[in-house]
Amino acid sequence: MKKLFIFSLFLTQFTFAQYQPNWQSLDQRPTPTWFEDAKFGIFIHWGVFSVPAWATKSNADGFGSGYSEWYWQRLFAPNLKIHPEFVEFHKKNYGNRTYQEFSQDFKAELFSPDDWAKMFEQAGAKYVVLTSKHHEGFTMWPSPQSWNWNAVDVGPHRDLAGDLAKSVKARNLRMGYYYSLYEWFNPVYKSNVNQYVNERMIPQMKDLVSRYQPDVLWTDGEWDHPAKTWRSEEFLAWLYNESPVKNSIVVNDRWGNDTKSQHGSFYTSEYGHGGADNKEVTGFVRPWEECRGMGESFGYNRNENLDSYQTGEQLVHQLIDIVARGGNLLLNIGPTADGRIPVIMQERLHEIGNWLHVNGDAIYGTRKWEKAPPYTKDSQVYFTKKGTTLYAITRKWQDEIVIQNVAKPSNIRLLGFKGAVKYSYKNNVLRIITPSVNPSNIPCQYAWTFEITP
Amino acid sequence: MKKLFIFSLFLTQFTFAQYQPNWQSLDQRPTPTWFEDAKFGIFIHWGVFSVPAWATKSNADGFGSGYSEWYWQRLFAPNLKIHPEFVEFHKKNYGNRTYQEFSQDFKAELFSPDDWAKMFEQAGAKYVVLTSKHHEGFTMWPSPQSWNWNAVDVGPHRDLAGDLAKSVKARNLRMGYYYSLYEWFNPVYKSNVNQYVNERMIPQMKDLVSRYQPDVLWTDGEWDHPAKTWRSEEFLAWLYNESPVKNSIVVNDRWGNDTKSQHGSFYTSEYGHGGADNKEVTGFVRPWEECRGMGESFGYNRNENLDSYQTGEQLVHQLIDIVARGGNLLLNIGPTADGRIPVIMQERLHEIGNWLHVNGDAIYGTRKWEKAPPYTKDSQVYFTKKGTTLYAITRKWQDEIVIQNVAKPSNIRLLGFKGAVKYSYKNNVLRIITPSVNPSNIPCQYAWTFEITP
Amino acid sequence: MKKLFIFSLFLTQFTFAQYQPNWQSLDQRPTPTWFEDAKFGIFIHWGVFSVPAWATKSNADGFGSGYSEWYWQRLFAPNLKIHPEFVEFHKKNYGNRTYQEFSQDFKAELFSPDDWAKMFEQAGAKYVVLTSKHHEGFTMWPSPQSWNWNAVDVGPHRDLAGDLAKSVKARNLRMGYYYSLYEWFNPVYKSNVNQYVNERMIPQMKDLVSRYQPDVLWTDGEWDHPAKTWRSEEFLAWLYNESPVKNSIVVNDRWGNDTKSQHGSFYTSEYGHGGADNKEVTGFVRPWEECRGMGESFGYNRNENLDSYQTGEQLVHQLIDIVARGGNLLLNIGPTADGRIPVIMQERLHEIGNWLHVNGDAIYGTRKWEKAPPYTKDSQVYFTKKGTTLYAITRKWQDEIVIQNVAKPSNIRLLGFKGAVKYSYKNNVLRIITPSVNPSNIPCQYAWTFEITP
Amino acid sequence: MKKLFIFSLFLTQFTFAQYQPNWQSLDQRPTPTWFEDAKFGIFIHWGVFSVPAWATKSNADGFGSGYSEWYWQRLFAPNLKIHPEFVEFHKKNYGNRTYQEFSQDFKAELFSPDDWAKMFEQAGAKYVVLTSKHHEGFTMWPSPQSWNWNAVDVGPHRDLAGDLAKSVKARNLRMGYYYSLYEWFNPVYKSNVNQYVNERMIPQMKDLVSRYQPDVLWTDGEWDHPAKTWRSEEFLAWLYNESPVKNSIVVNDRWGNDTKSQHGSFYTSEYGHGGADNKEVTGFVRPWEECRGMGESFGYNRNENLDSYQTGEQLVHQLIDIVARGGNLLLNIGPTADGRIPVIMQERLHEIGNWLHVNGDAIYGTRKWEKAPPYTKDSQVYFTKKGTTLYAITRKWQDEIVIQNVAKPSNIRLLGFKGAVKYSYKNNVLRIITPSVNPSNIPCQYAWTFEITP
Repeated sequence: MKKLFIFSLFLTQFTFAQYQPNWQSLDQRPTPTWFEDAKFGIFIHWGVFSVPAWATKSNADGFGSGYSEWYWQRLFAPNLKIHPEFVEFHKKNYGNRTYQEFSQDFKAELFSPDDWAKMFEQAGAKYVVLTSKHHEGFTMWPSPQSWNWNAVDVGPHRDLAGDLAKSVKARNLRMGYYYSLYEWFNPVYKSNVNQYVNERMIPQMKDLVSRYQPDVLWTDGEWDHPAKTWRSEEFLAWLYNESPVKNSIVVNDRWGNDTKSQHGSFYTSEYGHGGADNKEVTGFVRPWEECRGMGESFGYNRNENLDSYQTGEQLVHQLIDIVARGGNLLLNIGPTADGRIPVIMQERLHEIGNWLHVNGDAIYGTRKWEKAPPYTKDSQVYFTKKGTTLYAITRKWQDEIVIQNVAKPSNIRLLGFKGAVKYSYKNNVLRIITPSVNPSNIPCQYAWTFEITP
Repeated sequence: MKKLFIFSLFLTQFTFAQYQPNWQSLDQRPTPTWFEDAKFGIFIHWGVFSVPAWATKSNADGFGSGYSEWYWQRLFAPNLKIHPEFVEFHKKNYGNRTYQEFSQDFKAELFSPDDWAKMFEQAGAKYVVLTSKHHEGFTMWPSPQSWNWNAVDVGPHRDLAGDLAKSVKARNLRMGYYYSLYEWFNPVYKSNVNQYVNERMIPQMKDLVSRYQPDVLWTDGEWDHPAKTWRSEEFLAWLYNESPVKNSIVVNDRWGNDTKSQHGSFYTSEYGHGGADNKEVTGFVRPWEECRGMGESFGYNRNENLDSYQTGEQLVHQLIDIVARGGNLLLNIGPTADGRIPVIMQERLHEIGNWLHVNGDAIYGTRKWEKAPPYTKDSQVYFTKKGTTLYAITRKWQDEIVIQNVAKPSNIRLLGFKGAVKYSYKNNVLRIITPSVNPSNIPCQYAWTFEITP
Repeated sequence: MKKLFIFSLFLTQFTFAQYQPNWQSLDQRPTPTWFEDAKFGIFIHWGVFSVPAWATKSNADGFGSGYSEWYWQRLFAPNLKIHPEFVEFHKKNYGNRTYQEFSQDFKAELFSPDDWAKMFEQAGAKYVVLTSKHHEGFTMWPSPQSWNWNAVDVGPHRDLAGDLAKSVKARNLRMGYYYSLYEWFNPVYKSNVNQYVNERMIPQMKDLVSRYQPDVLWTDGEWDHPAKTWRSEEFLAWLYNESPVKNSIVVNDRWGNDTKSQHGSFYTSEYGHGGADNKEVTGFVRPWEECRGMGESFGYNRNENLDSYQTGEQLVHQLIDIVARGGNLLLNIGPTADGRIPVIMQERLHEIGNWLHVNGDAIYGTRKWEKAPPYTKDSQVYFTKKGTTLYAITRKWQDEIVIQNVAKPSNIRLLGFKGAVKYSYKNNVLRIITPSVNPSNIPCQYAWTFEITP
Repeated sequence: MKKLFIFSLFLTQFTFAQYQPNWQSLDQRPTPTWFEDAKFGIFIHWGVFSVPAWATKSNADGFGSGYSEWYWQRLFAPNLKIHPEFVEFHKKNYGNRTYQEFSQDFKAELFSPDDWAKMFEQAGAKYVVLTSKHHEGFTMWPSPQSWNWNAVDVGPHRDLAGDLAKSVKARNLRMGYYYSLYEWFNPVYKSNVNQYVNERMIPQMKDLVSRYQPDVLWTDGEWDHPAKTWRSEEFLAWLYNESPVKNSIVVNDRWGNDTKSQHGSFYTSEYGHGGADNKEVTGFVRPWEECRGMGESFGYNRNENLDSYQTGEQLVHQLIDIVARGGNLLLNIGPTADGRIPVIMQERLHEIGNWLHVNGDAIYGTRKWEKAPPYTKDSQVYFTKKGTTLYAITRKWQDEIVIQNVAKPSNIRLLGFKGAVKYSYKNNVLRIITPSVNPSNIPCQYAWTFEITP
């Protein structure tokens, strides 16, 4: 079997394949444009970790100890002075139960993928990325390589990855999967990484792509080994040449400890607040994507109260900041073990959706404006452009907005506002006079967009 | 023992007691003023029902089928066409487990009463009412009469009622308890109500009051029997004459199927949206209190998504409507079985707190303004008064507010706003010109208060 | 209700009642003869304690620490140096779970009362005594006074006491119930014993007797208070005068710390190996009954291996010893939480049944032989009599059996053996020559009976 | 890695290896004599199936529906008219719980391997065979290939296979493992048997042998594929040439659907009651071994009452029958999920042990007597020999035992009996006159051995 397969690959390479299994060739593939146009996606961290659903309250230590999805790993790192709370919490509440035994309490009995998809659509998201397998190794689909450690054999007794994909695609959103290359405690991984890659990881990734045909494959857990060890180039060649999604799929940049911000359809930052930037690589622009939770965790953390959550205003401001810099926001939600999206997260999605409903023209399909002044953390006005139209988005209401280096406009309007907008233009300087508003006629909250037509 | 006790009561009555065990006498007791000044309290429905935490999505049938705290009763009323979902849900998710067996999963392991009390204080609430025992009969304190069916013997292994009281009182909020007179499935209650009242109910209420010294006793489940059967007059005579809280305690009007809006320190409405009114009884004004949840349930209902929850604006509007009519709002939250206040509820409390932080002067300690025009569901402007000061609260921002029947003001200010407020006064008609505001200087959201000093 | 009841009692006493509520009168009631004829009963210790089903391996300390039904109490007596193992065991295996929470795992899902009754009948037992309520307070029937702490509300969801009674009676065995007067941890008992007796204990005992009409009521846990406190005389007057089993019921002697071996239908010893003796009281002989387990525990003890169990031979020898002294053996079995009789116990019952099948004539309906030499622990030959027939039972096979003080026999036979038995008689001394036997024709094992007809 | 490994094998074959990976060569290996001398071993079926521990009561259908270890498979074969009870039982007692989720209740908390080993030794067993992995695929040791589906990761949290081996070897008993080649529901097995064999099965068997160095490897579940598919010859070549137990290990004959009674150290029958026979293969005698439970199941079956269990007498008779025919008895016990050997099984082991204590000379180290008359189910006298000594074992006590074709004895004794044994010898016919015995001097029960010294 294996020899035949290799032979077939060989033929393919010389006959039909566009891409060779090496970065030089793989990097020639342009990023499908749908991704850069989408701007806003929903990340979903869901798994066995959603059962204890607990982490410390603060990430202040910089080690991500507020990440509940790392719970299992924390139990075995109590010597680090940052993590003893996990061991204490576990012992107090679960005694000598092992993490694996949480799987029975991951039931997802209230999971309604149609409702989820509807919420994502109403929030203005254009794509969705679900953890198909996190570092714990538990697969959210019935992976043959993960027998009895997947969501069909134990716990939910349901193909969570597949069912969500159906509902998401039915709303014309793009479906994607997060997939962790490594697995903390898999004894085969720990003793023989090559065997692990050959027997488990590669078959799982191919199975996942072939079964559900996602448009995003979002890998992680790559840092212990170079891409060669993970056989990433080989896999990507298959993905780009042969997989059923070879034309539409995008992948991130986490394919080995030597690939971040080097290879992949897009580059990633994490809780980075717009610190990245699009880059041109081998003739193609690589967009970037910032991912973060609404609070400090990705997986649901029962230990987060209201003060841990970003407000709707803060999240909208982050979205604006990121899009103005050319990036996407992949905003995370952490469902509960019983299959619900916590209502506070629904609220935040709703608040963002309300804002995008008014201001979406300034976000979707736009690109960064090269003439914008450098953004700092005190910036109040952000810019995007689409064709010749320029959008100025102010996070603070002020009487006058001054814009340099802009062509003379033929029209300016405040998105969502019916009245006219006055402005002056002199010496390449545009001055917009903000109209008078009050609570009864203001178009939205948090930030306001002036559309400038040349 | 019993004879001695009766004898002691007899002596008491003729020597020190102010109140006789009959309504004529009991109604002479004035309502402690702290209650009418408080205006805003937090109701907490928490118990074994917080484990399934489920009800149908809608109360549209008018039978309260959206109340998750009625879950147990619903399982035994499947013949009613409104409730079959409960039975289906239970069977699907819990098989042949009995409701009583949920008690083990009521663990309250994350319960932090200090954090709760702080949230209540920051929300602007002045009192708290916890279900010490709902119709299920499970007591949230170690009641000797409810051995093995209370929060210390099973489940949380903790005196929830007592621990919360400590934290609430430490913040100078008033502590109160809800207590259900009847118990759906208690076999003694069902076969011999007198025995139940003598052996369980009265001892429990006295124990509760004596141990924790609450300032509110909020009874319920009274509808099957008259007050005589419940021995309510006797109990209240004890409460008003002898209990450690005889001076401060207030009780509601649910003491028998013949007492509602007739007797008690205050009268109650439920999901009534201000349909009640203060009344003068035997020379004393009886305030009223509206109770309701943030959504459609009192107990936590996992089946409620964002669209089931009132917005912060709606809740503030309800508070204004109620206070303007002379009432209190007892706003309910439903904690989870693990002891958390769902973050969406924290958000709503926070939104109300923000509003009260600016507008509290127009709420606390006020009384209804007798000269206010009758309120309808289209009313926009509401009034309260405190001494000679009048407060006009508008739920809709409008250029001009016109008030009839008011004395000429010496000053008017918009609470939380620094600028002056212009107005005109002619023929007993006051016209307030609303100042110009924008998102950067508006004092609050949802509603705005003009303080009118004569 | 209460007054009426007292009135009715008053009438009864003067008109129909045979017995007054005082020992002088109660002791006039003869013990129903069925009991003394029965000789062999089955004791059943079953309850929530059957879930942990654990005790230390040895009773050597003399404090009954091998009794698994005392598990709960042991957890709260760790200061005694004999019991720390219980606390360690509990902590290690159950963490912070309370004893009450074991009730959910008491499921009795394999309980087949018909099969049980058949086994008891085949074992040769004539009556059965089930723990209707042990010191833990959990009732095996749906007692209204023990709501949510009984076998119908939680755990088995079945009326275990009632279902077993039906099956036992259907085989013409007598049904009986053990009932513990006190309850270790019942807070009402602990704070107010009178209230406990009036509100819980007396109603429960009357309910039990009225519902299931047992022929034995076997009380226990009486040692903390005198009979007056327990209202035992009143209760027994009701039992003997008015209850539906007034003619057939027998009770033991545990009705207060002042009644043991003084009052009751029969006197009791426990793991006493025949240390008691029948007594004549107010003209009536009071039989005695020895109770014991097959091992060292009454409740099922998973910590008992084969070496803790008496062999079939030892149990048969005990039965013989007891019956020869005029007593009954109430041999205990401890079913498992899932409702089975451990097969080793079935084996022991079977072994006894096999022996009784051959030798029953020498047991049932017999009385002690007054002329028997005093029994010691080295005795080999035991005697019973029925009418004029004498039975000599030898626990050791020997060539010749010599009996003093016996009338000249007309016939002697070895029960279960077809051949003739030779003997000589001279000077009131009978010498029985044991026949020659081998494994193919020996009638039974363990002990052999010679029936001596005068 | 793989290539290197193959190369090393290659070298080995030509340099040191005794055995080639083909039956012709493998069959040259003689069966280590310890096995044929041992005669009596203990089989242990223990695994996740010990949690439901249930099967139908009868195997009368001939399909093994009384085997509790097949529980999982039965749930998916409800269309067969013999198995619907399993589905009903599961649904009633476990609802929608999957079999995999039983693993959490397999706790083995009372497992004491030292106590087990002591019992086995006292029963007279010489070797022990534990299910290291049954058809369910769950491994009783921490197999890297069975992550999260083994006894260390979930359930017992203990290396059951390893801990038992230590205790067994410490008593100088031989340790062995049962290992199922196939796994009913392993998706890799079901879709790609070669991948399964390469990636899971072979690595597991090598790991098991290397870690614990057993003296028996008892495979099963071989029937779906020929030995080539299982790579059995390759594996056995490794086992015989390179493994740490290459000199001592014995294997059975279940290596493919083409190997039974053809290849292996010994041949097997199952519930066959001695239907097999030793065979000479390529110059070596292959012993046979009969395996069976004490009842009708291998795994513990809570549905078996006393009437399902063989008596001690029956088991001893089977042992005699088997040994007389040249075989071994591998008698099975089924421990409980909490780690105990049911006491009735301890009793049976004890009964066998008692018999072997007296009669062991006639069992251990013996061979079948070629001159014995053919055994039928009515045979009463069985023969074994050791050197020139002949043993005649009678299952029925009779006055005279007649033996043909035997040399004239110089002495005859009844094992365990002090008295002399009379006999006559004429015309090659030996007549043994059984001595007179009674319960006080008979050496044992069940069967009696006459040792005939020539």
